[in-house]
Order: sequence, then structure tokens, then C-alpha cells
Amino acid sequence: MTEFRIAVDAMGGDNAPAAVVAGALSAARDYGIPITLVGDEKAIRAELSAAGRLPSGVEVVHASDVVAMDEHVSSAMRQRRGSSISVGTHLVKDGTAAAFVSAGNSGAVMALATLTLGRLRGVDRPALGTVFPNSRGRFLLLDVGANADSKPTYLVQFAYLGHAYAQQVLRVQNPRIGLLNIGEEQGKGSEFAREVFDLLAASPGLNFVGNIEGKDLTHDIADVVVTDGFTGNVAIKTAEGTAEFILREMRTLLTSKLQYKLAALVLRPALLRLRARIDYAEYGGAPLLGLNGIVLISHGRSDAQAIRAAVRLASEYAAAGLVCPAGIESYTVPPLISGSGDES
Amino acid sequence: MTEFRIAVDAMGGDNAPAAVVAGALSAARDYGIPITLVGDEKAIRAELSAAGRLPSGVEVVHASDVVAMDEHVSSAMRQRRGSSISVGTHLVKDGTAAAFVSAGNSGAVMALATLTLGRLRGVDRPALGTVFPNSRGRFLLLDVGANADSKPTYLVQFAYLGHAYAQQVLRVQNPRIGLLNIGEEQGKGSEFAREVFDLLAASPGLNFVGNIEGKDLTHDIADVVVTDGFTGNVAIKTAEGTAEFILREMRTLLTSKLQYKLAALVLRPALLRLRARIDYAEYGGAPLLGLNGIVLISHGRSDAQAIRAAVRLASEYAAAGLVCPAGIESYTVPPLISGSGDES
Repeated sequence: MTEFRIAVDAMGGDNAPAAVVAGALSAARDYGIPITLVGDEKAIRAELSAAGRLPSGVEVVHASDVVAMDEHVSSAMRQRRGSSISVGTHLVKDGTAAAFVSAGNSGAVMALATLTLGRLRGVDRPALGTVFPNSRGRFLLLDVGANADSKPTYLVQFAYLGHAYAQQVLRVQNPRIGLLNIGEEQGKGSEFAREVFDLLAASPGLNFVGNIEGKDLTHDIADVVVTDGFTGNVAIKTAEGTAEFILREMRTLLTSKLQYKLAALVLRPALLRLRARIDYAEYGGAPLLGLNGIVLISHGRSDAQAIRAAVRLASEYAAAGLVCPAGIESYTVPPLISGSGDES
Repeated sequence: MTEFRIAVDAMGGDNAPAAVVAGALSAARDYGIPITLVGDEKAIRAELSAAGRLPSGVEVVHASDVVAMDEHVSSAMRQRRGSSISVGTHLVKDGTAAAFVSAGNSGAVMALATLTLGRLRGVDRPALGTVFPNSRGRFLLLDVGANADSKPTYLVQFAYLGHAYAQQVLRVQNPRIGLLNIGEEQGKGSEFAREVFDLLAASPGLNFVGNIEGKDLTHDIADVVVTDGFTGNVAIKTAEGTAEFILREMRTLLTSKLQYKLAALVLRPALLRLRARIDYAEYGGAPLLGLNGIVLISHGRSDAQAIRAAVRLASEYAAAGLVCPAGIESYTVPPLISGSGDES
């Protein structure tokens, strides 16, 4: 049993509450993580009853309302103070939970988490990060969608947030920071990208390694890659779509002839490992960075396995004291990285 | 032997001139396409001698200069009027060749092609398109990098160019036009994307089907997807990097055990077909749309196979009369599509 309790939005995602409750329970069972399921108590209790003997440390906190997956953020903000998302983020705010995980309406999670927890000093906008595999391990890409419109200075703040993340979670001492761009050399790219390049190059305490092209993302050139939320979102979704397309085509080919099917049977363990390596479900969730509290947003299509991975990740983040590059007061000041944790 | 002569930049690309000459020759041999190799005559003749018996219809046009792959466009524009790129585009301009193919410095190709051939009426900026596989066939994504900074109106012009392309090349009667965005519903995305959405929705003659997310690109929702050149470039390079990453991981896994190696041997034909389906080399080149002439830009890393595919594509474009959605005079006027071809 770890000391960090994770609150989970039982009502969030396409497969809620069944898959969420199942995933959270398996995280409690497999990793000893205490969990608090947030949402409609009756629905949650029904799932728990069906699950049989419960692992210890499972609690339920009722939330009377749910934000729909396709609901507009503005309506979620006005009318959903009793929603599972709002209740869950308040559990983090008051210290009852060390982190909150939701596969729900991501716009609403970002807005309500920001409202409830507040931003770190020096951060204008929180950023959604996502951990990607590369040839040697993994790297953090941010922002992947918290901000559809960004200013160049936001990306510098994202770089400091990513720097802290890479030190605390990826355990990289001097994280390499890259800028997603459409050419490698300085001076390449859009006006926006060129301006960000100059700002990053002038930012103290950052190990800025320059521009990185989409094709080189997986080449272990950087530990953190910053981009605006529009480009980052297109990049991760294109990568996701490409991976799905290839796996689908592969399945079609491997089932097209009897001898292929037999060979595929032999390869099954290898193919499953390949899928695991590129499957979002294995990576759990995307941390929302820059807030006074740990929030993870999981894929709306999350199954139990993805929720389990997200809860585990949230527990790791809590243990690493992720919140709190203690003061990105100004992006021109290198953040003091502390392993401890609260700044409110 | 087809009637359309294709000019090929023998000096362009990482593997020039050897791979380019070899690829062009195999296009001439396999498809009967007359080709004109443009570049340093001595170097080209040396490759031709080494190639043995030549197919008919092969010509050489000397160009005294070469634009380096990493050369700045401005220097290429000032000093490289005798470059293979400049000479090649002039062959299209004066009607000696029906199209020009280059794997050289893409910025220089775009700039020199625009200078030499001129833009179609109503087109502010040419766009680089790329044909991608999807679940049922293929679709055109543009702009994938001709313009790092775009205005919303450019994307509407790209939509008309793509509409014409889809009709003439993909043979789709009423092409579905999508906008690459970070949400499906109207009102989602950046300010820029929302403005483009409204313009596209109001553009006559276009079958605008709305927003398309990166993960749905391969789902056959649209025949043409428009985006700004920065986002489009990140998207195609991320897709390329993802595909390479998966194939690399697959290779590592399939060679990790003897029984996997044996099974992989059985699967070899299927795996090769998979690779062909997702390999850029099979798709040849990216058309530069919106000019008074057909220009294809091939990947800088093109091998002979990629050049062969590009020459074939250029020949198809010439046969389809691709240049010339006869007058995108204003993006508010639906273009008259003509199968013929010249507008200068």
C-alpha cells in the first residue's frame, strides 16, 4: 500500500463507469494504490458489488452530476460544480487525494482543474503533456491540446514545466529541450516558431537543443519537446492514427492466408509486445502541468487497462512530488526544482 | 511510349545523381516515359554509360550549377539561375517537358518554380500536396510545407486546388473536403481554424465535410484535407516518423528469436506489402499545386524506386491535365475544372 491516494473520475470516458471502476480496482489490487472513486454512488456501488471481494483502501465519494463527453466547456463550468470532475479536483485541492485521474471531457477537466487548483506562479496557462516512446526510452511532448491558441512565451513556460517533469519523473539530470518545427536549422519555420526559438535560446537553466522535426521525434534527440497546443494535438493524433492504420493493415494481411495465420500465431507474443509499445493504453494518461496539484487526463476511449496505467502513473507522479517546479515565477528565471511539493 | 516528356532534376536529393538517373531510367524502361535528365552533363553521361543499353527517349540537358540541399532559398534565388532546378522548370515553362520532378532543396524548388512558371490566377501561394493512403484508397493532404505562415484565405484556395486534383487525379466526382483540426465539431480549434471553417462552409462548389482530426485522417472521411503548411508538415513528418518507428520496432522483435525469424520468413511477402503500403517511396512525390505547370517534389532521401514512382506520377498528372483548375480567380468562385491544360 502506497501513501498516495488517487481520486478517479468514475463517470469519465466512453466506457464509464464499468471500465473505469474495473481499471481503478486493478490498480488498487496490483499496485496497492489507495483509490477514491468519484461519481454517482449508486452506479459505482453496483460496479463494486459485481466485482466481488474488494482490495483494501477503496473509497467512494458521491458526485451528483456528470459532464457529458461532448458538452461545451462553458456549460460545464457554469452548471457542473457538482460534477465528478469538480468534486475530484477538490479532493486534490483539500489534500484528501494526491492526484486526480479522469478520462472525461478533457476541455472540462482542464478548465475545472485550473479553476479549482490554480496555476503555479509564473505559469500563464497549464499545458497537457504526453509521454511518447522513442528509440531509447520515452520523452515528453507538450502542449498536446490544453491551448488551441498559444503565445510564444507560453511555450517557454512549457519548457520549464517539461524540464521539471523530466528531472522528477523521467529522472534525467539535464533534460534536453527541443522545439517542434518544420526544419532543423535555426531560422526555419513559421514566425511563431522562430520567435519561440529565440526565446528558448535565451532562457537560463534550459538545455535547449534546437528544432526537432516530426520525423525525428522518436529518435531520442530530446527529453522534452515543446509546441503549441494545436500543432501538438495534431501531432499526437496523427501518430495515433498512423499506428492504428499500420496495425489494422497488418492484421488484414496476416489473416489473408492460412500460412500467414499460422506464422502470426508463432509471432503472437512479439506482436503483442509491439502493440503494447505503441499503444496509448500502456502509457496511461496525459499530465496537466502547471497547476497546484496533479491531474491526469486519460484517453476518452480508455479501457480498464488504460485506467489502471493512469492510476499507476498518477501515483508515481505523487511520489515524485511532480507538482511544483517551485516557482516558475517568470520564464526568464530558471525554476528551482524541489522534490517536495506544495505551492498554493 | 507516352506523349508526355518528364524533366528530372538529376542533381537533386541525397542520392543524386546515381539514384536519380537510375530511377528515371527505370521509369523510361518500365513505363515508356520519355525523360530529360537535367544537370551536370558529364556526371549524367557517366551514369548513363554505366547503365548499359539505354531505353529510348532519354535526353540530357546541361545545367551548370547545383543548389545544395541545405542552401538558403534566398541564396538559391540570387545565384542559381543556371541551376538544374531553374533549368528544369524552364523546360516546363517553354513546353519542352510536361512536368518537372526534383528531389532537391524543396524550398528552392518551390521558389524557383513559382518564379519561372507563375501562379494560377486567384492563387496567392502554391501549396505542396501529398497523397496518403487511407482505409479505402488515398487522399490528398495540403499544404504540407510550401508556406510556413498561412492566411485563412490561402486554405480556401488550397481547397479548390485539392478539389481539382481529386477530380482529375483521384477520379472522385464530388470530392469531400475536410479541414485538419483538433476537434470534430464546428467551433473547435484555434481562432485560425475556426475562421477557415467559416470560409470553407461559405465557399460555393466545395463539398465541405467539416473538421477532421489527425487520428481520423486514414479513415476515408475526406478526399482532400486542407491545413496550413506548418501543421501539415508536422503531420506528415510525424506520420513518417511513427511508421518508421513501428517498422523498426517490428524488425527488432522479429529478429529477436529463431522461431520469430522463421515465422517472419513465411510472412515476408505480407510484410513487404505492408511496407509498400506505408512507404513514401511508393507514393513518389508531392505535387506543387497552384502553378502554371506541373512540378513534383520528391523526398530528399529518395532512392531509385522513389524517383521511378515520382516520374510515373508526373506522367499521370500530365495525362490528367492536372495544371489548371481553369481559374481559381477568386476563392469565392468555384473553379471551372477543365481536362485540357494551359493557362499562362
